[in-house]
Amino acid sequence: MSKEIEIMESVYDKNDKVAAKINASLTQKGVFAINVMGAPGAGKTSSLIQIVKRLDKTPYVIEGDIEADFDTKTLLSLGVKTIQINTGGACHLDSPLIGNAVDELDIKEGVLFIENIGNLVCPAEFQIGEHAKMLISTVTEGSDKPYKYPLAFEKADIILINKSDLLPYIDFDQDFFMKGVRALNKTAPVIKVSGKTGEGFDEVVSWINSKA
Amino acid sequence: MSKEIEIMESVYDKNDKVAAKINASLTQKGVFAINVMGAPGAGKTSSLIQIVKRLDKTPYVIEGDIEADFDTKTLLSLGVKTIQINTGGACHLDSPLIGNAVDELDIKEGVLFIENIGNLVCPAEFQIGEHAKMLISTVTEGSDKPYKYPLAFEKADIILINKSDLLPYIDFDQDFFMKGVRALNKTAPVIKVSGKTGEGFDEVVSWINSKA
Repeated sequence: MSKEIEIMESVYDKNDKVAAKINASLTQKGVFAINVMGAPGAGKTSSLIQIVKRLDKTPYVIEGDIEADFDTKTLLSLGVKTIQINTGGACHLDSPLIGNAVDELDIKEGVLFIENIGNLVCPAEFQIGEHAKMLISTVTEGSDKPYKYPLAFEKADIILINKSDLLPYIDFDQDFFMKGVRALNKTAPVIKVSGKTGEGFDEVVSWINSKA
Repeated sequence: MSKEIEIMESVYDKNDKVAAKINASLTQKGVFAINVMGAPGAGKTSSLIQIVKRLDKTPYVIEGDIEADFDTKTLLSLGVKTIQINTGGACHLDSPLIGNAVDELDIKEGVLFIENIGNLVCPAEFQIGEHAKMLISTVTEGSDKPYKYPLAFEKADIILINKSDLLPYIDFDQDFFMKGVRALNKTAPVIKVSGKTGEGFDEVVSWINSKA
């Protein structure tokens, strides 16, 4: 076994151990944690805004970005308890980062949304203490995404197809998209949404309520 | 220095040495190589289609994807000499992968486009033998992308703002976007394009001709 492979295995192993501890601690507090993943500009924050508007539980947000804190400012201005993590270059969140943020947020019963780095590849490889993974895909990214980025679609517990308000202006083959999703993932609900108009988010929040 | 940091430094070092060799070999053959980067669904392939239509030099394409080969099939059907690389999970192309593909493609004088994995983070960290980096951003991803993903914008030699045909239907603050770009990168031309209508690609090809 090469030294690179050994080191990567130990990185994953350490990450998963910390993730399991975070998950147990959140469960004990009555917190349901959702790892929100998607490509850059998929509308992760605008989806969170639509969700917290409809949620009757207390929302908490951990905002992951390489740099900048626009989304944290937006969520704080809406009264959502939010903490920013800047990775300074790293392409995904890991569980030690989340452990520190959870301590700092002082979370009580409710729903914790962890907005991962905008990246359809690396975040899917790392557990960060979540109870469920929400994947946000978009009609503007195109219908071939499940085929090209299978791991994120395979691991998702719920999949949102965002920016549905733009459907009249673009080519998006929903049957082809769904065929790709179902080849990887038989069970996750797939819900068409619009962060702009709010379409579909009642259904998303019903799903959260059924799990949390 | 930790073992992880040592290993990462040796990975970058090895990659850069191979990249320098590929670059020298392509230069000697009269090939200008462009590393095409962008988020998932930014329209990298549709931009390449618009570019090769207008190019009076011989185009070659190396298509990078985690899985699937839709884009290679499309380009081959247009008569473009194209080779597929599937990384099987890895989030960026590296120079050993490109070295093998270049040998297989049997490239003569012309322009080589290397379409990287759809990812606005990791590809910007790796030289792959290119003479220039082309970054494709989109109006649908939003105007905050230079602030959130600075390295890709900092390293780009040319920046395309794709999907301009959707501007009437979305909020995109071009001044804010440009302010973010220019804080990182004083010189790269920034060109508004549409892979759908062809807008802007004459200017992109003029830039390629001025360099190649």
